[in-house]
Amino acid sequence: VYRVTWDAVSAERGGYPHFMLKEIHEQPKAVRDTLRGRVAEDLSRVTLSELGLDEEQIRNMDRIHIVACGTSWHAGLVGKVAIEQFARIPVDVEIASEYRYANPIATENTLIIAITQSGETADTLAAMREMKKRGLPVLAITNVVGSSAAREADSVIVTWAGPEIAVASTKAYTTQLAALYLLAVHFGQVRGELGDAAAREMITALDNLPQIVEAVLDTAPQIESFAQRYAHAHDTFFIGRGIDYAVSLEGALKLKEISYIHAEAYAAGELKHGTLALITDGVPVVAIAMQPDLYEKTVSNIVEVKARGAFVLALTWVGNEDLEKAVDEVIYLPKTLPALAPMAAVIPLQLLAYYSAVARGNDVDKPRNLAKSVTVE
Amino acid sequence: VYRVTWDAVSAERGGYPHFMLKEIHEQPKAVRDTLRGRVAEDLSRVTLSELGLDEEQIRNMDRIHIVACGTSWHAGLVGKVAIEQFARIPVDVEIASEYRYANPIATENTLIIAITQSGETADTLAAMREMKKRGLPVLAITNVVGSSAAREADSVIVTWAGPEIAVASTKAYTTQLAALYLLAVHFGQVRGELGDAAAREMITALDNLPQIVEAVLDTAPQIESFAQRYAHAHDTFFIGRGIDYAVSLEGALKLKEISYIHAEAYAAGELKHGTLALITDGVPVVAIAMQPDLYEKTVSNIVEVKARGAFVLALTWVGNEDLEKAVDEVIYLPKTLPALAPMAAVIPLQLLAYYSAVARGNDVDKPRNLAKSVTVE
Repeated sequence: VYRVTWDAVSAERGGYPHFMLKEIHEQPKAVRDTLRGRVAEDLSRVTLSELGLDEEQIRNMDRIHIVACGTSWHAGLVGKVAIEQFARIPVDVEIASEYRYANPIATENTLIIAITQSGETADTLAAMREMKKRGLPVLAITNVVGSSAAREADSVIVTWAGPEIAVASTKAYTTQLAALYLLAVHFGQVRGELGDAAAREMITALDNLPQIVEAVLDTAPQIESFAQRYAHAHDTFFIGRGIDYAVSLEGALKLKEISYIHAEAYAAGELKHGTLALITDGVPVVAIAMQPDLYEKTVSNIVEVKARGAFVLALTWVGNEDLEKAVDEVIYLPKTLPALAPMAAVIPLQLLAYYSAVARGNDVDKPRNLAKSVTVE
Repeated sequence: VYRVTWDAVSAERGGYPHFMLKEIHEQPKAVRDTLRGRVAEDLSRVTLSELGLDEEQIRNMDRIHIVACGTSWHAGLVGKVAIEQFARIPVDVEIASEYRYANPIATENTLIIAITQSGETADTLAAMREMKKRGLPVLAITNVVGSSAAREADSVIVTWAGPEIAVASTKAYTTQLAALYLLAVHFGQVRGELGDAAAREMITALDNLPQIVEAVLDTAPQIESFAQRYAHAHDTFFIGRGIDYAVSLEGALKLKEISYIHAEAYAAGELKHGTLALITDGVPVVAIAMQPDLYEKTVSNIVEVKARGAFVLALTWVGNEDLEKAVDEVIYLPKTLPALAPMAAVIPLQLLAYYSAVARGNDVDKPRNLAKSVTVE
């Protein structure tokens, strides 16, 4: 039970009007704390001594099941792309409330990764227990050291986000991403899929993430201005491809949770298979275009929604001014490796949800109908 | 190019006001035609002579990748549950526009199943070609005998739905389900996962599906009445668990495509992780509760949305009158095996989209912004 008087709360918010905004701004530190001690000083290796999996187990792994709910599930979707790309281990990302009842098929060399901020999410714990009973190794990624997930898993990667008070999760998500990136690089190195040069490039980029997040926070005024103009929208669509699609899902969830706008994310290439019918004059569409390889394809989807009258706000990397020809407004984010782009892209999406909720006069930290940790089924 | 004069079109609609309604009503025949000749007369075996996979290949198969777009992708999600349950082969269901660029990880014993009504869906064809180039066997499930997908795949299961004219796919979906159920049972028998008695039960139930679909069509007046009352809604949510969730996604897509209602499907257990914030007084929620095993859990999610004021229309099996205590309106559907329930449940969802679109005065057969086959990327 979390119980404080108003003054204490106000003090704890450290001058921010809401916990959510404070926690958004704590992300550079939270990510730095989560990376600390887990990358070698010379940036040559990831060291996850808490992992409890020996190198042979990692080499024999033929599948990973990531099990989670809500925002943690979205972090898992980013993790899947990173792990498949760097370590070439196939990953399934499963909704815990589905997985636990699905009689999942797993080989003896399957690793279960459970992601839960609180470590007390009922469905995630149930899924963990089920797979542990089957004798499979379970790794928990959690923000709470003494939580049930931390105690029951075979090994734990703690995210050092610090207490997260706002119902809408922000710094838990980015620190979960950091943990998953570390895992992806570590697995890639052990399995020989990531050579020394590639690993060093990755680890250098990981080490630089806190500064990237810091720099992205400077987009806040631009996002606030957009939110003030579009907070009245009933619907908002998020589109992206590949890992940009994974982060779009999280952007849509944030907006739903606290602004109550009916937001929905779509793999950009799926739009033409139905959702395009909902795009009409003035409907806001947030397009994530952070992957150079998929850029042309994403732009062609942006052109489709523009042709139906959408107002398009796009996120892309600094210097890609070409995009201004296709969209209404561009937010430029510092360039990082494409696989790490969600760490930058999610920040404006969090801020968009925050400022939209404020503009609509909602109770940002305690949205209607929602609890911080879903400890019941 | 499809080109006819108005009178010819009117004649072809066979007395129905729209192709979509005609095609919805053609489903008993379409499903019967798709099953015909593919189940042994004594209902002991599935015979898919066109499959082109020998028994050893089926026994060695360690993974299936289903690749598709839109409604065909939703059929794949149902197929996954059936194949995993009956044949215990793990299945990934991938959006073709994502899969083709994702450098997918596949073992040499992976079967690729491409689902496309037209056989010309650009992203699905590209994904097929990519995996064929890698030497993997590709099976196409398509409605058009001479299509690119049919010509390029190693083997083909034709769905005998007949020409589908309405943009919103209906009979293509149910015949794709029929094809996937046949596959699931066949694989289950060859791999020894489905004993003789279980196989006979399944095949008997499959053989009975056309009559089930026929009987479900009688719910049309009840659905029409609901649609007339709720067609003004801006948002509608669909919830379900397990295979009911897979069919919920298709129900939401139908409603989007032709009624332009912002419909969204949610795995019922995920509601509490965010979307519940959008449920307020009078918001319509369609709950699919066709799985006895998951029934109690689904009801607890229904109670949550009811507590926030939702108007709940529920689909359940005939005789389950218990549900009337929890919801506002119940549609009873003939009982079949839980895994086959989507074949019954999708019919009211198609009718809901149809009657909602009619009530809103939309061009049902040619919704705005959408084309029948997405032959461009």
